[in-house]
Amino acid sequence: MPVYSVSHVENVRICVIMVGLPARGKSLIAQKIVRYLLWLSIKAKCFNVGSYRRQLAGDTAITAEFFNPDNRDGWSVRVEAVNRATEDMMRWFAEENGVVGIIDATNLTKQRRSDLLKLCRENLIEPIFLESWCDDQDLILQNIADVKTTSPDYVDVDPAVATDDFLSRISQYERNYQTLNVADDEDLTFIKLVNVGSQIIVNRIESYLESRIVYYVMNLHIKPRSIWLLRHGESEYNLTGQIGGDSNLSERGWRYAKKLPEIVLKSLGEEHEHTNLTVWTSTLKRTQQTASFLPYQKKLEWKALDELDAGECDGMTYEEIEQQFPEDFKARDDNKYEYRYRGGESYRDIVIRLEPIIMELERQENILIITHQAVLRCLYAYFMNVPQEESPWMSIPLHTLIKLEPRAYLTLVSRIKADIPAVSTYKEKGTSQLGELASEVSNSRDLILNSLQASV
Amino acid sequence: MPVYSVSHVENVRICVIMVGLPARGKSLIAQKIVRYLLWLSIKAKCFNVGSYRRQLAGDTAITAEFFNPDNRDGWSVRVEAVNRATEDMMRWFAEENGVVGIIDATNLTKQRRSDLLKLCRENLIEPIFLESWCDDQDLILQNIADVKTTSPDYVDVDPAVATDDFLSRISQYERNYQTLNVADDEDLTFIKLVNVGSQIIVNRIESYLESRIVYYVMNLHIKPRSIWLLRHGESEYNLTGQIGGDSNLSERGWRYAKKLPEIVLKSLGEEHEHTNLTVWTSTLKRTQQTASFLPYQKKLEWKALDELDAGECDGMTYEEIEQQFPEDFKARDDNKYEYRYRGGESYRDIVIRLEPIIMELERQENILIITHQAVLRCLYAYFMNVPQEESPWMSIPLHTLIKLEPRAYLTLVSRIKADIPAVSTYKEKGTSQLGELASEVSNSRDLILNSLQASV
Repeated sequence: MPVYSVSHVENVRICVIMVGLPARGKSLIAQKIVRYLLWLSIKAKCFNVGSYRRQLAGDTAITAEFFNPDNRDGWSVRVEAVNRATEDMMRWFAEENGVVGIIDATNLTKQRRSDLLKLCRENLIEPIFLESWCDDQDLILQNIADVKTTSPDYVDVDPAVATDDFLSRISQYERNYQTLNVADDEDLTFIKLVNVGSQIIVNRIESYLESRIVYYVMNLHIKPRSIWLLRHGESEYNLTGQIGGDSNLSERGWRYAKKLPEIVLKSLGEEHEHTNLTVWTSTLKRTQQTASFLPYQKKLEWKALDELDAGECDGMTYEEIEQQFPEDFKARDDNKYEYRYRGGESYRDIVIRLEPIIMELERQENILIITHQAVLRCLYAYFMNVPQEESPWMSIPLHTLIKLEPRAYLTLVSRIKADIPAVSTYKEKGTSQLGELASEVSNSRDLILNSLQASV
Repeated sequence: MPVYSVSHVENVRICVIMVGLPARGKSLIAQKIVRYLLWLSIKAKCFNVGSYRRQLAGDTAITAEFFNPDNRDGWSVRVEAVNRATEDMMRWFAEENGVVGIIDATNLTKQRRSDLLKLCRENLIEPIFLESWCDDQDLILQNIADVKTTSPDYVDVDPAVATDDFLSRISQYERNYQTLNVADDEDLTFIKLVNVGSQIIVNRIESYLESRIVYYVMNLHIKPRSIWLLRHGESEYNLTGQIGGDSNLSERGWRYAKKLPEIVLKSLGEEHEHTNLTVWTSTLKRTQQTASFLPYQKKLEWKALDELDAGECDGMTYEEIEQQFPEDFKARDDNKYEYRYRGGESYRDIVIRLEPIIMELERQENILIITHQAVLRCLYAYFMNVPQEESPWMSIPLHTLIKLEPRAYLTLVSRIKADIPAVSTYKEKGTSQLGELASEVSNSRDLILNSLQASV
């Protein structure tokens, strides 16, 4: 019997209807909600009306004039795009058992919203409106800068021209905008974010899943920050190939710990030399020893960051597990995400206990997390949208710092490998053998696009 | 090194300033916040201005006229009461390292709120206003009915007279009421609850602790419901005195499981015969076997409800633990709440992993929870405000159903003992011996007053 979350018994289907002018971060919020829910195994999908519109009208030659409410052709293409997006969403709910669908479009008029509301109610889907309202010009210009560099509408367009066109597109939209409003819309379920969460109005939120979405959205911020993820230094158990336990660092692990302050400082870059970090560790000695030379004052210990509990297999090598519990060994390889060790945990269990950590991470600024292989895989999977089939098999070597820099529409990932060898703790599927010395990773810095598209 | 939560490093001090007319549930919300925070080991205290006013003016002969804004004597007593409450609160912050203080009073005027704001800022305390605004007459009358039966102002007063007086007191207050308002108060940190959470306005919430308070308050509801707490039926490990593990029910445990549907049905009472329950169990066999004959369709399994992880001591008897780990055995008796088993958990660890369960419980209606001794102690401690020194030592016998019926200002507790014997799993401090057969508990129904007082 799998571990359910309440959402699975509520038997609820929700359609989140985004509302707001272009460049208000709607797509970003929508994509983050989808990523968060998928990570929690709640089936979610975003339907971006902009993509449908581009399919219908073609990618190019879409200028601000297209978005003039008086432009008949533009208007009918946009109505058709919404219709196709909602039809696809309804099919997804019906045929693929979708739980949370998001209509990512401007939905600025009462009429449009009322049409969507009717459609949801006819299909027994709970509608929830999520408006991002913003009059902070700095925020808007920042967002426009992000959009014009990533929007398919402005491929190969001069940035200055793109900005002008986009501003004029926004003013076309503004002519029709009817914001959500407590007096007129008191019967609707809605969340209105004012200037990225400086004020939030929450109306008629009832189900559990709705309240989770609200709380998640409340915790988002857009201040620039970085998150560092790393495993503890090589431990004595790593040397003997034992899993679990609470062993000390090996000699090489201590060398890594001593070198860590220098590595972290380098990763900060020049401008951030005085950045203040908070260090989070698990309750296990090897993570705390790894943190012990870091000069940052704020250090927090989280039980939720402890390694996957291997239950009866704690302290064993993979070879011993294969001999003593051959069926379990095979079952784990067959479905590593769901397999729960006897008296221990599965990857799914870790995700559930990490949920409050993710919520904290969304609120906080610069955090350096020293944790363990399985936990780090789950955290990384959240930030980088790695599917559940893959995340338990990711290679996360020892003595390698991963730095994530979340941006509006992409995340920068750097991996910095310390020049201190460590054993590999990576077990491939179908074998009980561990890899060779973990030296395969070279330092790298990648731009990882989160495959986000603005919906404008 | 203890497990910290983020609140402990933020070094934040918060004053929650309640706002609202009498009979809007302010005291109830304030007391619930305090209970929730204390349970999470965050030092919190409520300062009820009504109690100070009663000390100054005496308990009796306080009629509505006293609350007329033009009544000079009444006014000066009430100002003095606020001053004394805030002075006590400031002393508590300074001398007892308080973290969240709550001023439970009406604070209806901008002037009063601005005075409190100034006081907070001078003392480097973050003020957060929490207004309960309500125009739903049914809710108000329900609340008045609760207040007049529990308020010290109406001891020995005829209920009809009390209601009239109270309504007229409210109308005295209404003359001066200035509600919080987005336009005028946009610089303040505030939460405004409209009709018990049917709408919520959240303004400028910044710190983590503030966001926790907001989310908790968002999840509160006042629909009548019950919560059933019980341990699994007697297990094979219970018979041998072993702790932890994942053993099956004993023969007597199975008898209890078979009888459970009848016991639960009886506890529902006549009117609720068709009440729909949701059953929550842990992931361990003994709780699921105990649930197996219950006729309710919604059954959920939670890893967070698993028994305290005894780590290296899993599967041992207390005598074996005393022999093999004598120092640990003593350390646990000395501070059972904080003691963490080697490779396992402490009671504090359980509270942290139960926090999402509590949040769910606040949202849900009728829930029956089948769990384990230590987990049940922590859940019970939350609902009944049991201090941390006591909760790990509470007696929660096997084969005994605990039904909690939370009401506005009190919780009804019934204990229903099944007529099926079971071993005692209760270990007294300083011994490794378990008690005799658990037959000491007789069926009982108690009104447990949560020592709440209305602040009006």
